[in-house]
Amino acid sequence: MRIEILATGDELRLGEIVDTNSAYMSRLLCAERLEVSRTTVIGDDRAELVSAMTSSLARADVVLLTGGLGPTDDDLTREALAETLSVELETRPEATAAVSARYRRPLTERDLRQAQAPVGSKIIDNPWGTAPGIRAEKDGRIIYVMPGVPHEMYRMFSDTVLPEIVRMRLGETGASALRHFVVHGVPESQIANRLSGLASSSDGCEILIGTRVRFGTIAIRLSVRARTSEDVQHALSDVSSEIRKRLGDAMCGEGDHDLAWFAAHAALERGLTIAVAESCTGGAITSRLVGVSGVSGALVEGVVAYSNEAKVRRLGVDARLIEEHGAVSAEVARAMAEGIRTESGAHLSVATTGIAGPGGGSDEKPVGLVYLASASAAGSDVVEQNMRGDRNTVVERSTETALWLLLREALRQEAR
Amino acid sequence: MRIEILATGDELRLGEIVDTNSAYMSRLLCAERLEVSRTTVIGDDRAELVSAMTSSLARADVVLLTGGLGPTDDDLTREALAETLSVELETRPEATAAVSARYRRPLTERDLRQAQAPVGSKIIDNPWGTAPGIRAEKDGRIIYVMPGVPHEMYRMFSDTVLPEIVRMRLGETGASALRHFVVHGVPESQIANRLSGLASSSDGCEILIGTRVRFGTIAIRLSVRARTSEDVQHALSDVSSEIRKRLGDAMCGEGDHDLAWFAAHAALERGLTIAVAESCTGGAITSRLVGVSGVSGALVEGVVAYSNEAKVRRLGVDARLIEEHGAVSAEVARAMAEGIRTESGAHLSVATTGIAGPGGGSDEKPVGLVYLASASAAGSDVVEQNMRGDRNTVVERSTETALWLLLREALRQEAR
Repeated sequence: MRIEILATGDELRLGEIVDTNSAYMSRLLCAERLEVSRTTVIGDDRAELVSAMTSSLARADVVLLTGGLGPTDDDLTREALAETLSVELETRPEATAAVSARYRRPLTERDLRQAQAPVGSKIIDNPWGTAPGIRAEKDGRIIYVMPGVPHEMYRMFSDTVLPEIVRMRLGETGASALRHFVVHGVPESQIANRLSGLASSSDGCEILIGTRVRFGTIAIRLSVRARTSEDVQHALSDVSSEIRKRLGDAMCGEGDHDLAWFAAHAALERGLTIAVAESCTGGAITSRLVGVSGVSGALVEGVVAYSNEAKVRRLGVDARLIEEHGAVSAEVARAMAEGIRTESGAHLSVATTGIAGPGGGSDEKPVGLVYLASASAAGSDVVEQNMRGDRNTVVERSTETALWLLLREALRQEAR
Repeated sequence: MRIEILATGDELRLGEIVDTNSAYMSRLLCAERLEVSRTTVIGDDRAELVSAMTSSLARADVVLLTGGLGPTDDDLTREALAETLSVELETRPEATAAVSARYRRPLTERDLRQAQAPVGSKIIDNPWGTAPGIRAEKDGRIIYVMPGVPHEMYRMFSDTVLPEIVRMRLGETGASALRHFVVHGVPESQIANRLSGLASSSDGCEILIGTRVRFGTIAIRLSVRARTSEDVQHALSDVSSEIRKRLGDAMCGEGDHDLAWFAAHAALERGLTIAVAESCTGGAITSRLVGVSGVSGALVEGVVAYSNEAKVRRLGVDARLIEEHGAVSAEVARAMAEGIRTESGAHLSVATTGIAGPGGGSDEKPVGLVYLASASAAGSDVVEQNMRGDRNTVVERSTETALWLLLREALRQEAR
């Protein structure tokens, strides 16, 4: 099955925004062993739209188009689609009702453009925005038209379009389900080894496993398809427990979340509070935790003790310790974690000190050397990491490790 | 002049990474009043590469291709280009020398693939990486082939390819120069009004002004082209001082930097130290400052006082003030900025408290309400902002405003 993407909009064509929609769809398709052959970015120009749609429909079995469904004059996707299919546009009552429901005022003619679709096409519901999507066929090729607004597109693609494409490939109606796991601290190649043999395809039951790595954290996607939903649930539960067994301590949790979410929720579930002391990560750990909705129930404070003086004054680190071992040392990392725990009264803490670069490195302590520590009432742990990469990479990677230490510390505690 | 982009690589096609290269080129071209008509993303597949190159060269005057120039087997751009041009590949001595200079070991045959180019094409130097770029022509259409590695591509494009395209359009050799300014706190439409009449084209001298807005901060790009470099310098200096005059206090500084850079450097140049107290921004301000290389000379500390208790204990905010006005209030923002200044001993401070959402809003204090304060020995300032958008947008926008307050506070101080 050949799949192409058409991403439309002048804001994309002129580089004002980066096309993240296409990468999102490509990734999800990839996890289903379906690959996008080509992505084309074009602007709000009717002739260009018609030419690109026509070429893509000539090459591909499925075309995924995003953008140009809004009510303004530069939203030309509906007109271009009708022209490509050589049919007229018509107003659809079901779409009119949906558009009306989203506006809290009388509809103008302009608003109602969003309820139009080419004759013979199908409307795709969009409960997350105003403009419905469209599914149309030409000579057996299928084109899905989705909104360009990322959160609307994400939902419409993953809830409606992707399952339909997957069923199309299977050539049957069957059932399917997805499960996500997050793992940290094991190289991707090792994960692949540990999970080998779990993916399979037999007796109409297909099990797929995909991994995605980012700064040391690996997202695993388990996808199961079978004839009935009972078969799916059965396989899902078997393979899930096997995955958990094989990955052991590296497992951070289940669900499509990031490490900050897992760490925050592990603390929240156990009634534990968190404090963060950062040096080289400069606020990135706290910032990630604050990005988790509801974290105010756990997060007491974060201190970016960038200067040695702040490490002493804010975290109670002994100045002699810094003098003796240097600010970038296992001893100071541990003292920072223990210090902020004491100062804040939090149950759990995490701390970082390192050399993010580009300057500040030496032969003994090179750029990329980072010490990370976690602490709780039970004691403290220190991890040394030697990372390659630019400043940003060192900060991002350290942040992931710190969130993982915090999660591990939370998982060890009894609920309160 | 019609321009198309071809972005190649399986990591792009499969969505493992987002195509930022194309947006980068499109933006720079846009600032030169040149527009990209179409961007096509394809994988490491020779037939697909040849087909896409052929189609693009049939439609466009200039084709910009990135990726596939490395030494591995899936780097197929050179072969596909030779096939598209119907010529052979040959090894270029100048490219061999450049590739050798980058490796600190004897070259393998595989390494030397990077020194190959189609007969009749030109080599483009790449002092930032191993693989040189290629410029080739077909029937009067030009194709530039650049590395896919962003930092190599950015430099090759802005230093070599873009100036050549611009000269091509001008149909002359002439001279040109660029200057950047950064402005905050004035709506983009007003900036356009204030700068109206400055862009011009006459007597072989072309003056272009482009703006780009992000979370309330506006980057202005002044581009001047003329017959001689004296003419360019003359126009650049005249227009620059006019821009400064018209924008007055809104001007943050000159150069292609972000607000964190301007704030950090304003403090460093004056020998001033900085402390940050954050609530709703959760470490984002400190994190941005830490992203500026050399900031350790100015930044003392950042405190993310997420809980009320931390605001009292760490920042010395009076608990009665929080009780009376609420944690999200002008009074508490000011007390946070003054408190961290006193506690840290820093010359300058900035503080935020607000409701980033999605929860926590009320009729009186809705989601998006943020108070920001700055303080110095001369006193303190508070700004109230009411923002729309999701949690991330509220945090980003508040962070920009906070960095601007910090910059303004620094600019007001005498050098020490």
